[in-house]
Amino acid sequence: MAVKKLGNQSFLLSNPVTLAGFASVVGKKEGEGPLEFDYVSSDDTFGEKSWEKAESRMQRDALDRALAKAGCAEPELELIFAGDLINQCIASAFAVRGRNAPFLGLYGACSTMAEGLSLASLAIDGGFVDCAAAVSSSHFCSAERQYRFPLEYGGQRTPTAQWTVTGAGAAILKACGDGPRITKVCLGKIVDFGINDANNMGAAMAPAAHDTLKAFFADTDTKPADYDLILTGDLGNVGKQLLVDLFADEGTDLGARYDDCGSMIYDGARQDTHAGGSGCGCGSVVLCCHVLGGMRKRRWRRVLFAGTGALMSPVSTQQGESIPGICHLVCIEY
Amino acid sequence: MAVKKLGNQSFLLSNPVTLAGFASVVGKKEGEGPLEFDYVSSDDTFGEKSWEKAESRMQRDALDRALAKAGCAEPELELIFAGDLINQCIASAFAVRGRNAPFLGLYGACSTMAEGLSLASLAIDGGFVDCAAAVSSSHFCSAERQYRFPLEYGGQRTPTAQWTVTGAGAAILKACGDGPRITKVCLGKIVDFGINDANNMGAAMAPAAHDTLKAFFADTDTKPADYDLILTGDLGNVGKQLLVDLFADEGTDLGARYDDCGSMIYDGARQDTHAGGSGCGCGSVVLCCHVLGGMRKRRWRRVLFAGTGALMSPVSTQQGESIPGICHLVCIEY
Repeated sequence: MAVKKLGNQSFLLSNPVTLAGFASVVGKKEGEGPLEFDYVSSDDTFGEKSWEKAESRMQRDALDRALAKAGCAEPELELIFAGDLINQCIASAFAVRGRNAPFLGLYGACSTMAEGLSLASLAIDGGFVDCAAAVSSSHFCSAERQYRFPLEYGGQRTPTAQWTVTGAGAAILKACGDGPRITKVCLGKIVDFGINDANNMGAAMAPAAHDTLKAFFADTDTKPADYDLILTGDLGNVGKQLLVDLFADEGTDLGARYDDCGSMIYDGARQDTHAGGSGCGCGSVVLCCHVLGGMRKRRWRRVLFAGTGALMSPVSTQQGESIPGICHLVCIEY
Repeated sequence: MAVKKLGNQSFLLSNPVTLAGFASVVGKKEGEGPLEFDYVSSDDTFGEKSWEKAESRMQRDALDRALAKAGCAEPELELIFAGDLINQCIASAFAVRGRNAPFLGLYGACSTMAEGLSLASLAIDGGFVDCAAAVSSSHFCSAERQYRFPLEYGGQRTPTAQWTVTGAGAAILKACGDGPRITKVCLGKIVDFGINDANNMGAAMAPAAHDTLKAFFADTDTKPADYDLILTGDLGNVGKQLLVDLFADEGTDLGARYDDCGSMIYDGARQDTHAGGSGCGCGSVVLCCHVLGGMRKRRWRRVLFAGTGALMSPVSTQQGESIPGICHLVCIEY
């Protein structure tokens, strides 16, 4: 069998997996930002009776759109990997209910989309299925009341706080076909530098992003300049600068090719989003429209998508714990 | 490449994956039940300051013990799949923190162990890694205060309620070696029959167990009598009887070879556990000691472990939603 493992954490796919279809569904505020999406709702309830149901609705819509864009009929879909931030991942479970494909629930906080893309790639390259989906979502309102304060309270935000993106992204991965392809995967370890400020998740996740990117460069014997776009999702403005600094300290310049989904999704000066966007939906909506769409238009040829997650909860914060960070990465080429 | 997919939901591993080591760590009440475990704590805090930290501690201990029993040094471990019931799966994230292996967080409620075993099997059979771990846990006290009432409240329990198991199970899966082997995997769809009583999760999960078992029998052209033990984990006494009835309605007798981890773990009459055990730890501690240990002693040769999960949350229940059930299955032979 061909060698599939590179170094300690990276995997080379014998047969690159095609991102045959991808779609992003977002809320009003995200639609008012600088990026374009497949669907922008003027109403963040998406016609549902609760924020949680709205989040499920976004996932359903994103998956339907991705399937349609992939020209993929529902019965072709063989596996769904999905996750979100809501307790017990109910946004995903209720979104997938009624589908005919097996469901694998994931929890990787904001790294969930990268985790789903990674596992779907391994399942396809391993020869188990030909078509799988990766989906993730977040909703500002469901996240605020769960992690922070009731919306009605109008709690003040710190400058390092990130704004949870209302949106869902979905990608359809296939064993063959035309489209950007996942060629390599790098799975991340938990990295915890002792940051315990739940309003500064970028700082907690930056060391994990650094760890995974560094492992990937070493495992594949490549360097940042070998890629057209290196994208973390989502460190926000604070974490993004920290990652640049962590690499600069080692003499590595990430350069203009580096950006972060949390920094890209809003116009911070105009939209009052402090350190930028966050949430399982942030990386996935930026990837599943702006980035993969840009690759199809030949704007970028080789992209690293490094999904970063802060694996804390309000309970762990209350108990004085620091924030474990994680980062999973997929290398996409077209 | 060899055909790996059987029917709609099942997978045949080209090279069966060995369960090289497995261990269960449980609390006091579980230790007083009819089954034996690797380690029984006389103190459900496991020496930690909170129930959540105690749950992480159990996972760490179970994984250490499983690694030792597999004769596996820490650096050999290439991937960890883990999950639990606590919001944002913090028991797993904090348990894995400090390990050198990449971590993939799962949420499948009480089906998590089966989900982890399935994904680890696919990763190994796909040729990506040679050694992976699947871990899951639950803790009565962390679950009660999160899902139901503060312990101090002394809330009364309904007859259909299940008792969340305090315990963690861990299994080390390897590409080769001696031990019981996972030969097939069946991944489940979400099945929702409209049950909305959060105190009757067995009824919500039984249709999912029926769906996955039936799919597996069809996909593999086998019948219940072809197995020495068919184990759901964890429907409890109510769900177990419903599953027997669902199969009986179709003329299929599951027979004495069928049992449920939730029904097995406690002596209900003596331990006042109503409909039996539940929680991500229930199936995993029964599997990782009683069942896999029994297979090593040649008590059973062909076992189906069907992990069942109720994908609800207190919020979904409050919003009037029914309970989506799921069931993933692994076929283990020795």
